[in-house]
Amino acid sequence: MSLKGKMLIAQGGGPTAVINQSLVGAILEARRNPNVTEVYGALRGVDGIVNENFLDLDFETEENLERVACTPASSLLSTRVKPDREYCHRMFEVIRHHDVRYFYYIGGNDSSDTVRIVKEFADEADYDLVAVHIPKTIDNDLMENDHTPGFGSAARYVVQAFQGVNQDNRSLGGVYLGIVMGRHAGFLTAASALAGTFEDDGPHLIYLPEVPFVMEEFIKDVKEAYEKHGRCVVAVSEGICDADGTPVITKLVKAEADDHGNVQLSGTGALGDLLSREIKDKLGITRVRADTYGYPQRSFMGVVSDVDAREAREVGAMAAKFGRDSLSGSVAIKRTGNYAVRYDLVPLESVAAKTKVMPKEFINKKGNHVTKAFLEYVRPLVGSSMPECARLRSPQVERTFHKKLEEKADV
Amino acid sequence: MSLKGKMLIAQGGGPTAVINQSLVGAILEARRNPNVTEVYGALRGVDGIVNENFLDLDFETEENLERVACTPASSLLSTRVKPDREYCHRMFEVIRHHDVRYFYYIGGNDSSDTVRIVKEFADEADYDLVAVHIPKTIDNDLMENDHTPGFGSAARYVVQAFQGVNQDNRSLGGVYLGIVMGRHAGFLTAASALAGTFEDDGPHLIYLPEVPFVMEEFIKDVKEAYEKHGRCVVAVSEGICDADGTPVITKLVKAEADDHGNVQLSGTGALGDLLSREIKDKLGITRVRADTYGYPQRSFMGVVSDVDAREAREVGAMAAKFGRDSLSGSVAIKRTGNYAVRYDLVPLESVAAKTKVMPKEFINKKGNHVTKAFLEYVRPLVGSSMPECARLRSPQVERTFHKKLEEKADV
Repeated sequence: MSLKGKMLIAQGGGPTAVINQSLVGAILEARRNPNVTEVYGALRGVDGIVNENFLDLDFETEENLERVACTPASSLLSTRVKPDREYCHRMFEVIRHHDVRYFYYIGGNDSSDTVRIVKEFADEADYDLVAVHIPKTIDNDLMENDHTPGFGSAARYVVQAFQGVNQDNRSLGGVYLGIVMGRHAGFLTAASALAGTFEDDGPHLIYLPEVPFVMEEFIKDVKEAYEKHGRCVVAVSEGICDADGTPVITKLVKAEADDHGNVQLSGTGALGDLLSREIKDKLGITRVRADTYGYPQRSFMGVVSDVDAREAREVGAMAAKFGRDSLSGSVAIKRTGNYAVRYDLVPLESVAAKTKVMPKEFINKKGNHVTKAFLEYVRPLVGSSMPECARLRSPQVERTFHKKLEEKADV
Repeated sequence: MSLKGKMLIAQGGGPTAVINQSLVGAILEARRNPNVTEVYGALRGVDGIVNENFLDLDFETEENLERVACTPASSLLSTRVKPDREYCHRMFEVIRHHDVRYFYYIGGNDSSDTVRIVKEFADEADYDLVAVHIPKTIDNDLMENDHTPGFGSAARYVVQAFQGVNQDNRSLGGVYLGIVMGRHAGFLTAASALAGTFEDDGPHLIYLPEVPFVMEEFIKDVKEAYEKHGRCVVAVSEGICDADGTPVITKLVKAEADDHGNVQLSGTGALGDLLSREIKDKLGITRVRADTYGYPQRSFMGVVSDVDAREAREVGAMAAKFGRDSLSGSVAIKRTGNYAVRYDLVPLESVAAKTKVMPKEFINKKGNHVTKAFLEYVRPLVGSSMPECARLRSPQVERTFHKKLEEKADV
């Protein structure tokens, strides 16, 4: 079947450092498809479709596209709007009006659901439409995927941050908390475990949304690590919840929810400050510092996993290849070796509106760190040429001055 | 004069990403000086001198030293202890006991003062001691120096962070605040201005400790920028003070002061959260996010200015070269071209316990951004090969669907 018509592509949800790789991968691959008459980009995701805000991307030079691919955050801009069925129907109306036959949406599980509904409307109207969801999310929480584009680069950022703060904490002592993004899935926080080079390197403790957070146990863990190492570095997911599933942070801040009903976790230092206070009060440690890594995790310019960038490019290109064969669905990354991947097209409903979390075999028994299996899983994803930390290895000089003083004192 | 004896080196205060370059520069240069009998490193700065905790650094291979040089934060560990005269005298006693003749201390203006006092004790005791202060600080606030080692890499981190969050804010809109380190001097916050590529890129507003912070004006500025750009990115120094010189943050948090009387500004998200609340309350903007960049600014692994790394190495090497000629003082970086530097040895008292702040010509008239003169000053310091942001440049497609709808509505 050769379906002739326009292609429309958009980007939704929270951006990543490599989301434009997927955009450019799809555009360049579509240019090789003679049935694609024009390539349109919708501005601000679904909002741009409903409101018919399209860019004619045929005007883009390959040179500029390659530079856009290396720029973080959605070049077509994004949106947090969650379309209901009526909204999706309006999207479909605009798509039909413009004779769009190839619809690609780069986003998370909500975006996958949107693509599914739009495709349903097309099918109901007997309108031939190829609709493909292209995965992205730094949370790494999409079903069907071994991992998601955007995760590797965010994980690399987190690792490089913890490599540095671990050195800093070693220099000046005390307790250091790094608060990492991740609403339901702890993959990104867990990735911090790659930061250690030496046996006593941090993070010494890792707290994930998958494990119920108990303040008393947290304080006990910190005390133990602090006594052992004379210092302590902790990675905490912003999404940690107590035993009844309530995010710890909602106890602190006036909840601000978006259209998806998600409470704001990022862009505030409240959780880190709360945990710092608890440690100071309960353990009497004076030097306690908390950093909330925030948006640089998904957008920091110049810290990108080469593996992640390549795969993000490929999921975009594969979407256009599946589309050329008139196949609809969601592109999924499957791991086929150590390290190798393959791209499958899976049903949209298998990804839509579901969330994957850390499996048990990735979390240690005490629930405050990760396992070797997780390290093996995550290591290839952060990419090659990771910077390496080194230490001085010289022997201690004999304390002859103090020895002399003591001898004097003995006399 | 050929002074024969041991060399002792230490690192003090807040670490930087390149402070070990200075350490390694001094060690390697000292190895070429036949009068240096042994090279000792004191652990934890002045504390390690008083307590005689020395490493015999002659055991370090050059290979390991080169790797240490690329590792952030003080490899000899650090301290926040501020020595009084008695403390300095004890330092001198240990120095004399070990026949140390070359004393190098890498640190900020407080460290320079310590070196000055120790040298005074040596002079009073007729003990030949070469004492050289090696500058470092991400705050860039040392007198006599065009800029300080450590600043360029921290500035590069800040620029890359703002490049990214500017794209992220462009994707999703709202107001974004990035809180940047800097107690009295705004250089690091001001460096964020380099992040903009396009005319409407952020940071749109920059608030420095040098300019009294007035909440009403801040809110007015944000409103204006938000109305102009449909979004707003703001860089705020953690050290901003109101008209009577009180840090805005001290109104919020239980003050925790160190031995130097410095109140804790970093490692808490309180300032960003306060400013966010004000914007939400006063302007009714719902999407307001604040990130406090914290310790990654001075320690992030792998983001280093090549210029900064080179100069940090050179100030260390120059200290050892001046020392070989039996010259005491503080090594200072002087700018001699665009871009070229020279290293002078200046009197310790000219650097000691003084703070340099942003000169007026670097701050715009309204006091909420920087001037071109500052951009020219700072650009070479962040190093070469800065990543570059790009945008799509395609024309908008005609909104024929909505035109048709409107025509129908008119009938």
